[in-house]
Amino acid sequence: MPSPDETFSQLCEHARQTGLLTSTLGILNWDEETYLPRDGRAHRAEQTALLAGMIHQRQTAPEVGRWLDELSAEPLAEDPHSTSGCVIRQLKRQFDKKTKLPQKLVEELTRTASLAQQAWFDARKADDFSAFQPWLEKTIALKQQEAAAVGVTDVAYDALLDDYEPGESTENVAKVLSGLREQLTPLVEKIVESKRKAPREILSRSYPVDQQAEFGKQAAAGIGFDFNAGRLDVTAHPFCGGGGPRDVRMTTRYDAGEFAGGFFSILHEAGHGIYEQGLPADQFGLPTGEAVSLGIHESQSRMWENLVGRSRAYWEHTLPKLQQQFESARGVGLDEFYFAVNDSRPSLIRTESDEATYNLHIIVRFELEQSLLTGDLPVGDLPAAWNEKYQTYLGVAPPTNANGVMQDVHWSAGLFGYFPTYALGNLYAAQFFDQAEADLGDLSEQFRRGEFAPLRDWLRDNIHRHGQRYSAAQLVERVTGKPLSHEPLMRRLNEKFSDLYDLP
Amino acid sequence: MPSPDETFSQLCEHARQTGLLTSTLGILNWDEETYLPRDGRAHRAEQTALLAGMIHQRQTAPEVGRWLDELSAEPLAEDPHSTSGCVIRQLKRQFDKKTKLPQKLVEELTRTASLAQQAWFDARKADDFSAFQPWLEKTIALKQQEAAAVGVTDVAYDALLDDYEPGESTENVAKVLSGLREQLTPLVEKIVESKRKAPREILSRSYPVDQQAEFGKQAAAGIGFDFNAGRLDVTAHPFCGGGGPRDVRMTTRYDAGEFAGGFFSILHEAGHGIYEQGLPADQFGLPTGEAVSLGIHESQSRMWENLVGRSRAYWEHTLPKLQQQFESARGVGLDEFYFAVNDSRPSLIRTESDEATYNLHIIVRFELEQSLLTGDLPVGDLPAAWNEKYQTYLGVAPPTNANGVMQDVHWSAGLFGYFPTYALGNLYAAQFFDQAEADLGDLSEQFRRGEFAPLRDWLRDNIHRHGQRYSAAQLVERVTGKPLSHEPLMRRLNEKFSDLYDLP
Repeated sequence: MPSPDETFSQLCEHARQTGLLTSTLGILNWDEETYLPRDGRAHRAEQTALLAGMIHQRQTAPEVGRWLDELSAEPLAEDPHSTSGCVIRQLKRQFDKKTKLPQKLVEELTRTASLAQQAWFDARKADDFSAFQPWLEKTIALKQQEAAAVGVTDVAYDALLDDYEPGESTENVAKVLSGLREQLTPLVEKIVESKRKAPREILSRSYPVDQQAEFGKQAAAGIGFDFNAGRLDVTAHPFCGGGGPRDVRMTTRYDAGEFAGGFFSILHEAGHGIYEQGLPADQFGLPTGEAVSLGIHESQSRMWENLVGRSRAYWEHTLPKLQQQFESARGVGLDEFYFAVNDSRPSLIRTESDEATYNLHIIVRFELEQSLLTGDLPVGDLPAAWNEKYQTYLGVAPPTNANGVMQDVHWSAGLFGYFPTYALGNLYAAQFFDQAEADLGDLSEQFRRGEFAPLRDWLRDNIHRHGQRYSAAQLVERVTGKPLSHEPLMRRLNEKFSDLYDLP
Repeated sequence: MPSPDETFSQLCEHARQTGLLTSTLGILNWDEETYLPRDGRAHRAEQTALLAGMIHQRQTAPEVGRWLDELSAEPLAEDPHSTSGCVIRQLKRQFDKKTKLPQKLVEELTRTASLAQQAWFDARKADDFSAFQPWLEKTIALKQQEAAAVGVTDVAYDALLDDYEPGESTENVAKVLSGLREQLTPLVEKIVESKRKAPREILSRSYPVDQQAEFGKQAAAGIGFDFNAGRLDVTAHPFCGGGGPRDVRMTTRYDAGEFAGGFFSILHEAGHGIYEQGLPADQFGLPTGEAVSLGIHESQSRMWENLVGRSRAYWEHTLPKLQQQFESARGVGLDEFYFAVNDSRPSLIRTESDEATYNLHIIVRFELEQSLLTGDLPVGDLPAAWNEKYQTYLGVAPPTNANGVMQDVHWSAGLFGYFPTYALGNLYAAQFFDQAEADLGDLSEQFRRGEFAPLRDWLRDNIHRHGQRYSAAQLVERVTGKPLSHEPLMRRLNEKFSDLYDLP
C-alpha cells in the first residue's frame, strides 16, 4: 500500500499531465483565433472536442477520487494554505463538482450552448428577441438543473457564481455591488450634467496599424509583460490565453482610425498575461500554480488598464513617446490627452463603456440573471426589465433589443454567474491598489518616471505567487487587512471624475 | 460478440482519434518552429513528449492487436487495395513493427538520438569528427539491434529503409541508384568542362523580403496550393507539416539578397502541401487517408520545384510577373533567367546542390550507410571513405569534416535509411511526369499559359486520392505501367543540361 506521500506524488503527476493537455488545448484555441486556415475549422473542432473529453475524463477518473478521499484524512491536507493542503482541497472541490454533474446533463448543456449561440447570433441580427427566447428559457432551465445537481438547493445562483468565483456568495456580491450602484448612479448623473466634454477626437485621428502594434508591444513590455515568455497577435476579439506560465498568448485588434481600443486592450490583456507569467511555473498543472478566480484575474487586467494606463501620471511618462511615434498626437497637451482617454458618458454597449459607467452595465446583468434563475422574472419580460434598469441606472434606454438585452454572448453560451466577476475585478483592483500605494509609496510618482516594476513585483509577491492557496476573499483580507468593499473604487472614481468633469 | 463490421468500425474510430492527436502534435511542432516564445520551449517539450507517448500507447494497445488479428482472417481484409483491406493491412503492419521493439530499446534510441545530435552539433562546430565518432558507433549499434528486433536478419538496412519507404528493398534501390550514378557522373563531368556559365548573379540582387513572400504565395496558389486549407510562414528551415488535409502548414525562409532559396523552397513545400491537401479528408487518420511513403511525398515536392518550377516554360509564364514585382529582374532575358535558376556545379553541401548533382550527394550517403550497417566500414574510416566518394562521384573533396561527413543532421538523429527517399523522389517524379505528359499532352504548352490545374488534378487522381492503397512500387507500376527506373530522370537531365551547357 502506497504511503500518503506516494499517493500525493501520484496525484500531482496526474494533475500535471492533465495540465499539459489543458495547455495544449490553450494553444489550439489560440491558433484557431489567429492563424488557422478557414477550412481547418471542422477538423480543429474535432481535435478540441477530443482533448476536452480526455481532460474531463482524467479530472473525474475514479482513481483520482480514491486518492483524494485517502489524502483528505491525512495530515498533508490539514493546512489549507500549504502546498499539499491547497492541492488536495482544490482538486477535491473540482472532482466533487464535476462528478456530481450527470453526463447527460453535461452533454445537454454543451449542445444547447452551441445551438443557443447560433440562435442568439441570428436573432440579434434580425433584432428578434422572440426567436431567442425559447433558447434562453431552455438554458435557464438547464442551469437550474445544474445547480440542483451539485447540491445547491437554496440560492441556485451560488452554484453558478462558484464556477467563476469559487467560494464567493451571491449575497455578499449583491451587498457590495448595491453599495457601489447607490453611489455610482449619482456620479454618472453629475458627469452627464457637466458642461465639460472630453476631446475624444484626438483618439480618432490617423494611427497606422503597424505603429500601433509596435507601440503597444513596447507599452506591454514597459509594464512588465515578458515577451520571452509570451506573444501579442491580432484577433477579432482580444483575449489572453495560451499554454502555461512561460507561454502566454495575448491578442488585440487595431483600427487605423482609432487609438484607444487597440492600446487599452493591450494593457488589459498584458495585465492578465503578467498574472499568468507570475504564477509559479514549478507548480504548473496544480491548483497552487493556477489563478484564484476570474475576478482576481480581472483585477490584474483592470489595474494595468485603468488604474495605471488611464492615470495622468502614466501619460505624463507615455505621451512624449506617443508623440514621437504618431504625428496625430503631436501638439496635444497632457491634460487634453488624459481627458480624452477618460471620456465618460452613459452608453448602451458594455464593451465600449468607460471606467465610471462600466460597472452599472454589469450590475444590470447581475440583478437580471438572479431574477431569471429564481424564476421571478419570466424570460418574456426580460427586454422590458432590461430597458427599465438601463433607464434607471444609466439614464439611457436601447432603441433595439439587438443593442440591448441581446448585446452579449454570455447568456446564450450558458455563462450565468460570470458577469459579476467583471465588477469584482474592478473592486479588487482598487482595493489592492490602495494597499500597494500604502506599501510602496506614491505610485504616481513612480509611473511619471516610467517605473512599473515595483507595482508588478508587489502584485507578484502578494497575489501571483500564491496560486490558489487563498480564495479571493481570503486574499483580499490577507493583502489589504479588510474585507472587500465598494469604497476604494468609489473613492477613486469620485476623485478622478470630479477633477476631470469639474463636478460639484 | 461484435461482427467483423463492428470491429472494423471500432478500429477505424480508434485510428481516427489517434490521428487527431497526431495532427495536434503537428500543430504543436509547427508552432514551436514559428511562433513559440523562447522560454516556452521546455514546456513545449513536455507537451509533445506526452502526446507522442499517448499516440504510441494507442497504436500498440492490446485491443488493437486483437481487433487486427480477428479482422485479418475476414473477407474484409482480402482485397489489399480496398478501403478495409488497406486499413487492416497497414495498421497491422504498423502494430507488428511497433510492438516488436522492446520499450527499453525505444527509450535508448530516443535518448541516444537526443544526446548524439548535441554531440554532432558541437563536433561539427569544432570540426572534430573524433568527438562525434563514439556517438555514431553507438547509434549504428542500436540501429542494428532495431533491425534484429523487428525480425530482419539478412539485410539490416531493409528494416530501416522500410520505416520511410515501406515495402521497398535495399537491393532494388541499390540497383536503380547505381544505374543513375553511372550516367550522372559523366553528365556532371561534362557540365564542369563546359565553357558556358550560368548568370547566377541575377538571383543575388535585391529582392525585398515582403515582396518575396507575396510573390511566393501567389506562385504557390498558382500551382494549386489552397490557402483556404493551408498557410505559409517563416522558419529557419523550410518544412511542410500541420494538422490534416484542410490545415496544411508550410514554411520557407527569405534572404533579401537571394531570390532562389526562398522561392524554390516554397514551390517544393507547396508540392508536399498539395499532396496533403489531395489526400481524402474523409479517410483522415486511416492509412487510406495518408501519404504512401517519404519517397512518393518527395516526388510531389520535386516535381513542382524542378520539373515545373525550373522549366523554361514555367518562366516564360512567370518571368513577366517577376519583373513586375521586382526591379532587380527587369531587363533580364528569359534564357538568361532560365539558365540562372539551373546553374549546375559540383559542390560540397547537399542542401545547396542543383538538380543534376543532387542525387550524387544522396548516393554517397546511401552507399556509406549500408557499409556502416553491415560493419564493412568502421566508423573511424568514414571521413576518408566520404571524401573519396565525393572525389570519385562529384570531383570535389571537402577541406573539413564539418563541410563533409558531418554536414547533415540525419545520422546523429538515427535516421538511417532516410536518405535514399530523396533520390527516389526525384526518380518517381520524372517517371510520373512522363506519364502525365503522355496522358495530358504537352505540359510545357500548358505551363506557358499558366495552366497548372491539369497536372495537379492528374496527380490528385492518380496518386493523392489513393492514400496508402498501393505501395510506392505498386503505384509506380499502376500509374506508369513500368517498374521504377533511372531512365526517365536521366533522359530529362541529359536533355536539359545538354541544352543549357551546350554539351557534346
